[in-house]
Amino acid sequence: MNHPAQLDAVRKPLPAELLAALESIFEDRVSTSQAMREHHGRDESSYDPMLPDAVVFAQTTEEVAEVVKLCNAHDIPIIPYGTGTSLEGHILALRGGVTIDLSQMNAVLAVHAEDQTATVQAGVTRKQLNQEIRDTGLFFPIDPGADASLGGMAATRASGTNAVRYGTMRENVLALTVVTSDGRIIKTGTRAKKSSAGYDLTRIFVGSEGTLGIITEVTVRLYPQPEAVSAAVCSFPSTAAAVNTVIQTIQMGVPVARVEFLDENCVRAINAYDKMSLPEKPLLLFEFHGSESSVQEQAQVVQEIAGEQEAIAFEWATRPEDRTRLWAARHNAYFAMLQMRPAGRAITTDACVPISRLAECILDTQADCEKNDMIHGIVGHVGDGNFHVLMMVDPDDAADVARAEGINQRMVARAISMDGTCTGEHGVGMHKMDFLVQEHGEEAIETMRILKRAFDPKNILNPGKIIRWT
Amino acid sequence: MNHPAQLDAVRKPLPAELLAALESIFEDRVSTSQAMREHHGRDESSYDPMLPDAVVFAQTTEEVAEVVKLCNAHDIPIIPYGTGTSLEGHILALRGGVTIDLSQMNAVLAVHAEDQTATVQAGVTRKQLNQEIRDTGLFFPIDPGADASLGGMAATRASGTNAVRYGTMRENVLALTVVTSDGRIIKTGTRAKKSSAGYDLTRIFVGSEGTLGIITEVTVRLYPQPEAVSAAVCSFPSTAAAVNTVIQTIQMGVPVARVEFLDENCVRAINAYDKMSLPEKPLLLFEFHGSESSVQEQAQVVQEIAGEQEAIAFEWATRPEDRTRLWAARHNAYFAMLQMRPAGRAITTDACVPISRLAECILDTQADCEKNDMIHGIVGHVGDGNFHVLMMVDPDDAADVARAEGINQRMVARAISMDGTCTGEHGVGMHKMDFLVQEHGEEAIETMRILKRAFDPKNILNPGKIIRWT
Repeated sequence: MNHPAQLDAVRKPLPAELLAALESIFEDRVSTSQAMREHHGRDESSYDPMLPDAVVFAQTTEEVAEVVKLCNAHDIPIIPYGTGTSLEGHILALRGGVTIDLSQMNAVLAVHAEDQTATVQAGVTRKQLNQEIRDTGLFFPIDPGADASLGGMAATRASGTNAVRYGTMRENVLALTVVTSDGRIIKTGTRAKKSSAGYDLTRIFVGSEGTLGIITEVTVRLYPQPEAVSAAVCSFPSTAAAVNTVIQTIQMGVPVARVEFLDENCVRAINAYDKMSLPEKPLLLFEFHGSESSVQEQAQVVQEIAGEQEAIAFEWATRPEDRTRLWAARHNAYFAMLQMRPAGRAITTDACVPISRLAECILDTQADCEKNDMIHGIVGHVGDGNFHVLMMVDPDDAADVARAEGINQRMVARAISMDGTCTGEHGVGMHKMDFLVQEHGEEAIETMRILKRAFDPKNILNPGKIIRWT
Repeated sequence: MNHPAQLDAVRKPLPAELLAALESIFEDRVSTSQAMREHHGRDESSYDPMLPDAVVFAQTTEEVAEVVKLCNAHDIPIIPYGTGTSLEGHILALRGGVTIDLSQMNAVLAVHAEDQTATVQAGVTRKQLNQEIRDTGLFFPIDPGADASLGGMAATRASGTNAVRYGTMRENVLALTVVTSDGRIIKTGTRAKKSSAGYDLTRIFVGSEGTLGIITEVTVRLYPQPEAVSAAVCSFPSTAAAVNTVIQTIQMGVPVARVEFLDENCVRAINAYDKMSLPEKPLLLFEFHGSESSVQEQAQVVQEIAGEQEAIAFEWATRPEDRTRLWAARHNAYFAMLQMRPAGRAITTDACVPISRLAECILDTQADCEKNDMIHGIVGHVGDGNFHVLMMVDPDDAADVARAEGINQRMVARAISMDGTCTGEHGVGMHKMDFLVQEHGEEAIETMRILKRAFDPKNILNPGKIIRWT
C-alpha cells in the first residue's frame, strides 16, 4: 500500500559529509546496507517500506544527541526506532534520513522497589523489564501485545489489556530523558509520584511519536504482583449483552484487571486455531487481581451481573494452567484471524468511545463489514471502550484494500460522532493524520502545529507523522 | 510580604479604549472598583495583594474569548480567577491587567453516568459537582481541601487526600475547552477514556496556571460511590514507624483510599482545638473504600503491619459519625495550627519525594524547624510521598519571615536532592519559580520557555508566573 504523502515527499540525499561524521563516531554501528535499511523502513502496518538512508545504533543518550546535532546541522530527518512493532506507519522514512536504532540501549538503569519505580534505557522491552524485576515482587503491567520497547511504548502512548485497572503509558510514565531537536538533553520529571511543578513536559513527549524529541530513558511506575489472580470466561447471546455486563461491572466498582471482548468471528477463528470449543458467540474474558477473597468476590459479582444479561455460560478459572490457556487463546487471536484468509494481509485499526456507545459502535462496524463482504474480527479492551477491527484483504486487489479503508474511515467517523477518538492506543503515524483533524478540529490542530514548530523548527524529527506541517 | 519581581514589574495602565470596549459588552459585569480589585488581587498565600486594573465576570467561553482578543490587541495581561484559594501567588496581578472571574460560569453541562464522566464550566466547584451528581451513585474524588473551582483545580494540577487511590487532576481530566492567547477556542480531547490521537493538549494545559491558555470547560472522570467506607486511626512511636507502615501497606497492594500523616505538633493542636484526646505522637489516619468484606480485609492487613511497627493504638471506625469526627479533625488541622500563634500568619509549603525517602525528608525538616524555633506542623498525603509544612510567623517581623523562607528553601533543596519535586500539589505561582529551575535544570526550563513563547508570544497570559520570560 502506498501513502499519498509518499509521492510528494521531499527526499534530500544524505550528505557525504554527514555520513563521514557518523562513521567516524559510530564506526561499525552505522550502516547504509540495503538489508539494514529495509529492516528499518517497515513496521507492522500495511504500508510498503520507505527506507532511511542510514541506520545508526546508539548506546547512550549522549550519542543520540550527537546524531541529532549532526542531522540538525544538515537539515536531515531523524527517526527513532525501537522494535519496529508500531501499526500506523510511525517509523517509515517518508523523507529518508537517519534512523536511530535504540535496541542497544537496553540497560535497566535503576529499580527502586520501595518506591515502585524503575528507570530504563529506551530500548528495554516490557518483557525484559518484567524478567529483571521478577524477584522484587513487583511488575510492570502495560501490555500492548507485542514485546515493544519502553521508549516506543512511551512515544505511542501505548496501553493494552491491563489498562482498565493500571492505566496507560500516559499514567505510568513518571519521567523521561529526551533529546530535543537541537540536540539538548532534558529530564522531564522526577521520581515523585505526583507534582505540580510547572509544565508537564513528560506528557508532551508521551504520545508524540518521535516528532517533538527523542526519548532515551524512561522512568515508569511498578505495581505489586497480586496475591491472587483468577480468570473467568463467559459467552453472551449478543454483543449488547456482553457490553452491558462490562458497564455494570465497572459501575459496581469491581476493580477488574482485564476485560476483553471477542466477537463471534474471533471465537470461531480461535476454536479452529487453538483446537478449543468455546461457544461461537460474543465472549468476555475477565482477569481479577487481589487477595484470595477479593478475587473470589469480584468473580461472584461479575457472575451475577452476567446472569442478568442472560450469559450462556460462566466459567471461573483459578488454576494457572487454565488461565494461561484462556489468555494464550486471546493473545493468539491475531494469528488465528490471519488463518481466515491465508493468502491475505491484515489491516488493523482501533477506536475508543465512551462505553455507553460501545455496543452501538461495534454493531454498526460489524454490519458495515458484513455489507462489504469483508473477512473481519473484532476484539476489544471493552472496560476502556477501546476496540480493534482486523480485516483480511488481498494486498494486490486495490478494490479490496479500498473497501477496508472505507470501513476504517466510517468506523472512525462513527467513533468521533460518539465523542470518541480515532485511535485508543495504536497512535496516528501516517495512517490517521486526516482523522486527527476530523477529531480535534482545525483550531486544536493549529495549536498542535504551533507546538511542533516550536519544538522542531526545522521539521527534522520524524517528519510527516501526526500532523501536516502546513 | 513583597515579592522581588513585583518591584521591577512593568505595569502598563489600562487603555481607556479597552475599558470602554469591555463595558460595552459586559455592562455591570465589568468593575474597576477598589473593593472588587482588592478582592481579586489576593489569594491564600502570604503575599501582599497586587491588584488588577479591572475585573470582568464572564458567563460563556465565547465571552472569555472576547476579553482575550481585546486584551491581546492592547498587550494587556489577563488573569483567570476561580475561587481565589491558590497558595503560591498564582492569581496576583503582578503587572496589572484584567482579571476574568469565572465564578458565574457555574453550570454542570452534562453528566454521563454510564460513562462516569461529567462536563462542567470552569467555575463549578468540587462540592457543587458532588452535590449535583449525588443521585447518580457516582462521585468526584479529588479534594484539595478548599472548595476550589474545577477550572482552578485543573490549572494547578490539584490533588489532595484521595489521590493515593484516585489520582490527581492529571489523571482525571479527560478534556478541556481552552481559550488560547489569541482568542481561539479549542477542545483538547474527547470523552474516550484513553486516546493515542496526537499531542496531549489536555495535559499541556493541566497545571499551566493560566499561563498557556484559559480553561473554560472541564470534562472529568467520576467514580462509583464505594459500597462501604471505613476509617482507622493509629499512633506511632516515631515518624519512621508511621511512614514504614505506609510503605508496606502500599507494597502489599492494599488499595487505601486515603492515608494521612499528622506530626505530634498537629495532633497536639487538634486535641486543643477539637477537644480530642489523641495520643500526642505521630499519627496515621486511613480511609478504606470497597465492599463490606474488602474494607474489613484492608483494615486487618493494615493493623497487622502497624503492629509490626509497634503502633501504640489502632482504632477502626466503621460508623459514619466516628469517621466524620476523625476526618473533620484532619480537615481542621489548618485552623487548629493557626491557634498555636493567634496573632501570627501561616506560611504553608509542600514537597513530594519518593516514599522511601519520606521519613528522612520529614525528620530533617522537623529538625530544621526546631533548630530555628519555628512554630510548625507537618501533615502529609503520605501514600504519595507528599507533605505540607505550616509555619506560624509574625508577618511584621522580617527576620521571622526570612527564617521561614530559609526553612522552605532547605526543604525544597532536600526534596530535589532525593529525586523529588518542589511542589506536589500547590503549584509554582510566583513563590516557587526559582525552585523550578533548581528542580528541572536550565535545559528543561528552556524547553518550558519555548512552549510558553509559542503559546503566548506576547506574554499576556498570567505573566510572571511559573517561569521567567527571559
